[in-house]
Amino acid sequence: MRGAVLHGPRDVRLQERDDPTLVEPTDAIIRLSATCVCGSDLWPYRGIEAVQGAAPMGHEYVGIVEEVGGAVSTIRPGQFVIGSFFASDNTCEICQAGYQSSCIRREPMGTIGTQAEMARVPLADGTLVATPDLPPAELIPSFLAASDVLGTGWFGAVAAEAGPGKTVAVVGDGAVGLLAVLAAKHLGAERIIAMRHLGAERIIAMSRHAPRQQLALEFGATDIVEKRGDAGVARIKELTSGLGAHSVIEAVGTQESMMQAIRSTRPGGHVGYVGVPHDVELSGEELFFSHVHLHGGPAPVRRFLPQLVDLIWNREIDPGKVFDLTLPLDEVADGYRAMDERRAIKTLLTV
Amino acid sequence: MRGAVLHGPRDVRLQERDDPTLVEPTDAIIRLSATCVCGSDLWPYRGIEAVQGAAPMGHEYVGIVEEVGGAVSTIRPGQFVIGSFFASDNTCEICQAGYQSSCIRREPMGTIGTQAEMARVPLADGTLVATPDLPPAELIPSFLAASDVLGTGWFGAVAAEAGPGKTVAVVGDGAVGLLAVLAAKHLGAERIIAMRHLGAERIIAMSRHAPRQQLALEFGATDIVEKRGDAGVARIKELTSGLGAHSVIEAVGTQESMMQAIRSTRPGGHVGYVGVPHDVELSGEELFFSHVHLHGGPAPVRRFLPQLVDLIWNREIDPGKVFDLTLPLDEVADGYRAMDERRAIKTLLTV
Repeated sequence: MRGAVLHGPRDVRLQERDDPTLVEPTDAIIRLSATCVCGSDLWPYRGIEAVQGAAPMGHEYVGIVEEVGGAVSTIRPGQFVIGSFFASDNTCEICQAGYQSSCIRREPMGTIGTQAEMARVPLADGTLVATPDLPPAELIPSFLAASDVLGTGWFGAVAAEAGPGKTVAVVGDGAVGLLAVLAAKHLGAERIIAMRHLGAERIIAMSRHAPRQQLALEFGATDIVEKRGDAGVARIKELTSGLGAHSVIEAVGTQESMMQAIRSTRPGGHVGYVGVPHDVELSGEELFFSHVHLHGGPAPVRRFLPQLVDLIWNREIDPGKVFDLTLPLDEVADGYRAMDERRAIKTLLTV
Repeated sequence: MRGAVLHGPRDVRLQERDDPTLVEPTDAIIRLSATCVCGSDLWPYRGIEAVQGAAPMGHEYVGIVEEVGGAVSTIRPGQFVIGSFFASDNTCEICQAGYQSSCIRREPMGTIGTQAEMARVPLADGTLVATPDLPPAELIPSFLAASDVLGTGWFGAVAAEAGPGKTVAVVGDGAVGLLAVLAAKHLGAERIIAMRHLGAERIIAMSRHAPRQQLALEFGATDIVEKRGDAGVARIKELTSGLGAHSVIEAVGTQESMMQAIRSTRPGGHVGYVGVPHDVELSGEELFFSHVHLHGGPAPVRRFLPQLVDLIWNREIDPGKVFDLTLPLDEVADGYRAMDERRAIKTLLTV
């Protein structure tokens, strides 16, 4: 089969890889319908996260089950399935508490590499959720979004305790941030403020962001804050009687965005952080006196998947809108480049 | 009146200070029945926290109301009252959400200095809670404990979501840690593990700690873990099927104790941290992948005071046991020395 492999900074190639085979009796083999490039794939792509040798890429996936191991009982060949970036048994004490991405038997799909024609999915019964029937083509982008960015934004909103009567601020206008807006809306937040963050895109002209702002508004944002860093925090305070937002979702992972999130939150409020932190150090003193609740980490997407699959199947949400570039898997290198240069929010790869 | 004043590292003196007077119409003047030395007073006492010039000391207090300002309506002269280390209006949006120690009008009692014969209490209606009647002398230590260490340990246990079915670990065997054990017991925790922490007391002989362990057991601890740091974390894992505790209360404030707390907590579990952090830096990456909830800060003791006053009045809890040294206010310098040298858990000063 063909799959994407990263050979070094900004050198991703589609090449021949071995077809996956069943390794454990709990495995399934799926034939992908679509896959995509994640914001977190850009860390190794940009050389910020070191990679040893040639690394298969991708951890988001939807597809048709081709074959299952002898111990798989609920997932069957022919089903259309969605899974998350960590395979999980969904039965251990940690899974049962809703933290499947810390399952005691978890396996990262990123090392398997799902930007490919086929993939092995460990712990298939615990990991995969099947749709009621084969979905129409137009729903595939939304189901693919549920595999990571929707589930991650959703977890951010839940961790930030977004809900009725709350003012929610979202730091970061990537796919996860935009879908955190959608999640906060669905969870009943009263006011949702989409914020940009102080970071690499400072050099990008404002107009480039117009589509992101448009999407934030479509997903339910009531306010857009253009200011970032301390000025962004000051603006959030202005909008909230000087107190700060009740709930803030951090969807970037830099020092600046974490501090922007913490400082935008009122005492007693909640920060849900889902951007994978890189070189972030939090001052114990500042955190202590901020009086915020801090919760986040790799999203336990599996906790939310059954509900998200229902919402998408019933066309109550349309998270697939975050894909603003669709390319065949052959052109995976262009897909990375477009996201790296922020020409695209998120690239869907058809298989 | 006489009051304690810190003049430099390890130089605390009882000296004449001006009698307090009403400054705002919302003030009360109280005549103290007892006051005490706090673990947090040891930071400036040891010179770790810089102090400008001569600093009045103390922020814990119980006493009889002497006089109230014209705008005070619920507190009356002659009442026996308890207040917390932050004065708060108890009416603003932050107070109403239960975060009185971040009240938008808060005033720190530490700058007023309650290791003294009298004290001005700002925002008296919001800050002070009166007992049903004048209490018998034997209850005074427990009411004094409610002013800070009991309320702080209680907040730690609530922030860590201690409760039925939970295994709770407490890092730190000072007064706050010991009372966090009591709080966890009252909140219904199934198993409570008292832990020491890696810090200054490494040089102290083990036998010195026997009274602290005894008190932890009296307050409800089911297990004592002697090991600290990584070995302490490993022991907690052993006691919890390899997963970590559901709830961990951090009651020290050092880098080592914070990391001991975070690493002792299972994914999805809760860390309640109430030790004032000094030179603590948390790695964003480690926190992210730990999957814990982190919440803490200056305890909103006022949130819990009415309940704590009831529990003490009805003799359901006996937090005053943490005072293992009682001295007259005259001997305040000895009281500090005994705590600095860990000869005493906590010093009560009679006025």
